[in-house]
Amino acid sequence: MPRTGRRPGPSTTRAAILEAARRRFAAAGYDATALRAIAGDAGVDPGVLLHFFGSKEGLFRAVVGWPFDPARVVEPELIRPGREGVGARLARTFFGYWEDPTTGAALSALMRSAMTHAESAALLREFVAHELFARFAGFVHGLDANLRVELAAGHLVGVALLRYILRVEPIASAGIEELVTWLEPALDRYLQAGGPPVSQAE
Amino acid sequence: MPRTGRRPGPSTTRAAILEAARRRFAAAGYDATALRAIAGDAGVDPGVLLHFFGSKEGLFRAVVGWPFDPARVVEPELIRPGREGVGARLARTFFGYWEDPTTGAALSALMRSAMTHAESAALLREFVAHELFARFAGFVHGLDANLRVELAAGHLVGVALLRYILRVEPIASAGIEELVTWLEPALDRYLQAGGPPVSQAE
Repeated sequence: MPRTGRRPGPSTTRAAILEAARRRFAAAGYDATALRAIAGDAGVDPGVLLHFFGSKEGLFRAVVGWPFDPARVVEPELIRPGREGVGARLARTFFGYWEDPTTGAALSALMRSAMTHAESAALLREFVAHELFARFAGFVHGLDANLRVELAAGHLVGVALLRYILRVEPIASAGIEELVTWLEPALDRYLQAGGPPVSQAE
Repeated sequence: MPRTGRRPGPSTTRAAILEAARRRFAAAGYDATALRAIAGDAGVDPGVLLHFFGSKEGLFRAVVGWPFDPARVVEPELIRPGREGVGARLARTFFGYWEDPTTGAALSALMRSAMTHAESAALLREFVAHELFARFAGFVHGLDANLRVELAAGHLVGVALLRYILRVEPIASAGIEELVTWLEPALDRYLQAGGPPVSQAE
């Protein structure tokens, strides 16, 4: 079918926006990238971009391939219910996305991509810092609040790597609630404590 | 340089052994694979194989690309000094290998490979289970000893992923001793405790 002289179809436009956004976000980071600049690169009006992706955050999420909207999860499900039980809620939510075939495959794919492509790693780094970790800023206190959020994230991600990607036993077949019970104290310690770290070992 | 009719050189022989071993280990696992079978596939005497790799474990390590001998590390440095301080020793040793440019690059490469190639994942899974986790068997007690060793490993691996591969800040620039201090209580809890998990959160 000849395409010359015809307006590009929606899937072409969407792909052009994603490609322009990927280049801009990877080069300048999320905050320094203007929607207008992406729209210009893709040769569309900024309104088209909002029509496809809803918001700058939505576009960023599509570029990274992140399978859910962190704004709908972090505040309402993890933070708002309060400090009590935050570790268990976080672990349950995290494993919920990994256990679901669709979101689990997406998380697995973006982890693989970030490990093998520098640009994907840069985008994922920017995404998790801006869209996930920063959302805990007002919740986790102290000078090393960001480090502690990343320690909690690192614990969960490493368990996911052994369970879902390396598939080593017995962690690959352990029940979710068993994992939550084990992880809860470590996650609570990272996310709840306000003082300097105190060894809980004998 | 014509090679016809000449005996294969050492690097050709070594590569043939590694290729045969990779196929055998990936298909049947470590325990069920006989050195004699690998030697047969590679067309060499088993003695040649020992000459190049020292032992079946040494050959397995070369196939996986693991950058150090776990037998020289786990028992003497981590287990023999006793339960007290095992979490800190494990974390320091782990980060020591990641911080070293040579061993760090090797660990990073084999993690990338395992995430993107099913055969590499199968080999790494077999390797960590057999050569690393099993060495803690007599040290960590309880029905879920294996799970707990993997929880400790998962915590460390996830922190390494965020620090060395994703390079998200501030965890990428944190001091090793700061990380050890944070990780120690969680690692000790996984490796020291004998009873069922008890929440240490308030």
